[in-house]
Amino acid sequence: MTAYTATVTVRLKHGVLDPEAETTQRALERLGFDLEDLRAADRFEVDLDAEDEAAARERAGEMAERLLANPTIHDYEVAVAEREA
Amino acid sequence: MTAYTATVTVRLKHGVLDPEAETTQRALERLGFDLEDLRAADRFEVDLDAEDEAAARERAGEMAERLLANPTIHDYEVAVAEREA
Repeated sequence: MTAYTATVTVRLKHGVLDPEAETTQRALERLGFDLEDLRAADRFEVDLDAEDEAAARERAGEMAERLLANPTIHDYEVAVAEREA
Repeated sequence: MTAYTATVTVRLKHGVLDPEAETTQRALERLGFDLEDLRAADRFEVDLDAEDEAAARERAGEMAERLLANPTIHDYEVAVAEREA
């Protein structure tokens, strides 16, 4: 078994309204910042042990499907890296 | 001016309790997943135009300092990449 960290990034699908991100963007503009757009996403860093990188990636993908993301409104992506055990 | 996307990742400082992450970890374990640890972070993708990459990075860092992160409890990191305008 090897120690991995899987990073799962969960973001709203294109076209789904994100009032929190809009509020954040307007607050930054009110502070004087000039920006074109702002998107918010959730990031989960999951430490897990797996046989190999493919197994770690598959397990993290299942976690996203079953709990971390809502497939109706979210897209997600998984990145896997070895970690110091 | 060049078009950049600055990605600001905001995470709790080491030692700050994160009940949401703990709940998520326990929920995954209850679903039968085996994991060592789970950390949650917020990710903001900010589209902005700037003279160069250093200027974009500096501006995104200011946004983090002033609004996106709470320096008492959060660490943040900024990554900058050019984007298709």
